[in-house]
Amino acid sequence: MSTTDLTGLAALPLPDLSGSFPGPFPASPHAGGIEAHLGQWLRRFPLLGPPEALGPLCDIVAHGVARTFPTAEPDGLHLCADLFLWLTAFDDTHGEAAAASDPARLVRRIWDCVHLLADGEPSRDAGPFDEALRDLLVRLRTRATTAQYLRVTGCLRDILLGSLWEAHHLAEPEHVTSHDYRAIRPHTVFARTLVAVAEVVLRYELPEEARRSEAVRQPESAVADLAGVLNDLGSYARESAKGVPHSLNLITLIARERNCDVPTAAAVVARLGEERAAAARHGIGELATGGSAPLAQHAAALESIAHSYVWHIDHVRYRKA
Amino acid sequence: MSTTDLTGLAALPLPDLSGSFPGPFPASPHAGGIEAHLGQWLRRFPLLGPPEALGPLCDIVAHGVARTFPTAEPDGLHLCADLFLWLTAFDDTHGEAAAASDPARLVRRIWDCVHLLADGEPSRDAGPFDEALRDLLVRLRTRATTAQYLRVTGCLRDILLGSLWEAHHLAEPEHVTSHDYRAIRPHTVFARTLVAVAEVVLRYELPEEARRSEAVRQPESAVADLAGVLNDLGSYARESAKGVPHSLNLITLIARERNCDVPTAAAVVARLGEERAAAARHGIGELATGGSAPLAQHAAALESIAHSYVWHIDHVRYRKA
Repeated sequence: MSTTDLTGLAALPLPDLSGSFPGPFPASPHAGGIEAHLGQWLRRFPLLGPPEALGPLCDIVAHGVARTFPTAEPDGLHLCADLFLWLTAFDDTHGEAAAASDPARLVRRIWDCVHLLADGEPSRDAGPFDEALRDLLVRLRTRATTAQYLRVTGCLRDILLGSLWEAHHLAEPEHVTSHDYRAIRPHTVFARTLVAVAEVVLRYELPEEARRSEAVRQPESAVADLAGVLNDLGSYARESAKGVPHSLNLITLIARERNCDVPTAAAVVARLGEERAAAARHGIGELATGGSAPLAQHAAALESIAHSYVWHIDHVRYRKA
Repeated sequence: MSTTDLTGLAALPLPDLSGSFPGPFPASPHAGGIEAHLGQWLRRFPLLGPPEALGPLCDIVAHGVARTFPTAEPDGLHLCADLFLWLTAFDDTHGEAAAASDPARLVRRIWDCVHLLADGEPSRDAGPFDEALRDLLVRLRTRATTAQYLRVTGCLRDILLGSLWEAHHLAEPEHVTSHDYRAIRPHTVFARTLVAVAEVVLRYELPEEARRSEAVRQPESAVADLAGVLNDLGSYARESAKGVPHSLNLITLIARERNCDVPTAAAVVARLGEERAAAARHGIGELATGGSAPLAQHAAALESIAHSYVWHIDHVRYRKA
């Protein structure tokens, strides 16, 4: 383990992932193109106010997606980046604090999205989030098989429901166990969606029997858990630096359940991250050498998805964002 | 239009569907077998307390499903009946008034279900609703294609989110427009799910291009709208007879929006039902004669789904349930 070095924050342990995912991580040569595309897309669909102010967000999404799928072609990378940006913008705009103060409004907002996910007719008074989601769904449908499309749109519903779950528990985290939280986090950190999107972006298809096998499920779960742990460590550090650590964070929940201080809880979370990273590394290795082309492609996708989350926490850490 | 004759209720108009769906409606010869199966299933998964008290519920579900898919084989009928019973029991137990008083609890309850819909590992402390849902999903997966499975599990998420939407608006229906309500009702009345389940129960598959055509979407929407209207008319009458009409009902919403009395609003709703029934009848006829076998099968399924809702309101009406 190392420690965080964010200004104004007591040093917290971070997982040592140098054995599992040592880096440096391969990145797509198209990162610049993704960033330019994101700027254009945000001009078409102004999700977050004036696009000029969104350079840092476009930068981190573009470079993150370039590491998520380093071998993908531009069209798939753009789709993935736009989707990731939409999810981030939706959460920032409609989720979290705004949602906790008026969950009924979030329910109505989410329903507008689910209506589109369920192939409903677009509303006449659709806003930029609805228009952008429609654009994403049209492009996803063009690129994906029917089952892939349905799998991804299922994941998007799960994220939206997860944001509702969070909104209902921000004000009363005492009803949340770390066990429940860990079950929801792979969805709200978007990792499950990235796993489903991988097949669309990289154009392969897992056989159904393999998808339900332990050989596939184990590394998928390990990578998704790792993503949640890393995101919680990063966001706890970032929010503490601003003075408002999130009440729904694995560190906070562990500190309460074990009646321990924050550095001790953070050490538990960091060790969990190391354990999940080792499990992911092992499972990915097994999958890669199993002798089947789609399984090897899936192993490579899971590995680079893990890279993107590891890269992201380092990015947050060293840039003191 | 005719009028309701429920004891204690001022006569309200009902739609005249004798031109569109005249009846009598074909019923499966397996209704008795479905009812017996439902009793056994409820003994395995006690969703609603002692199964002995549930005879009337099993009776109406069995006879309803026998009309929904009159030509289906027993295995498919049993799956559909169990699913319909599960949805009804979930709503009765966790939705509506209980949910409105504690929406956070409903969110947690729904998340347990979504976890299973998203292929999560079953919890060690799973209750009968989780166990029953797992059983349904295993049987659905065995019978359905991958895309069919994903489409139905998407519909189930939409119903669960719809019950959350209802829970948040029972106490403050002034935020609900009849337009929004009509968009959500095809899901919460289970009609969209039945349309998705039809292919699984009757073993056909719509070509994707046809699924997105107006020729398919129009009668699907009309049948689903009709189902919502009929259910609202029936439940308003039933709940008024008990003295507590539901605040989230198209009659109530129309009365508020148009500043009119209940009989006038009910007449508007009844006319809407007649209009949607005529649209359904027209679209089903076009689909049936389009010359393609899966389209004709889908037309027959939509017709019998409409029958089941028409039969249901008559059943409620004449039995004074």
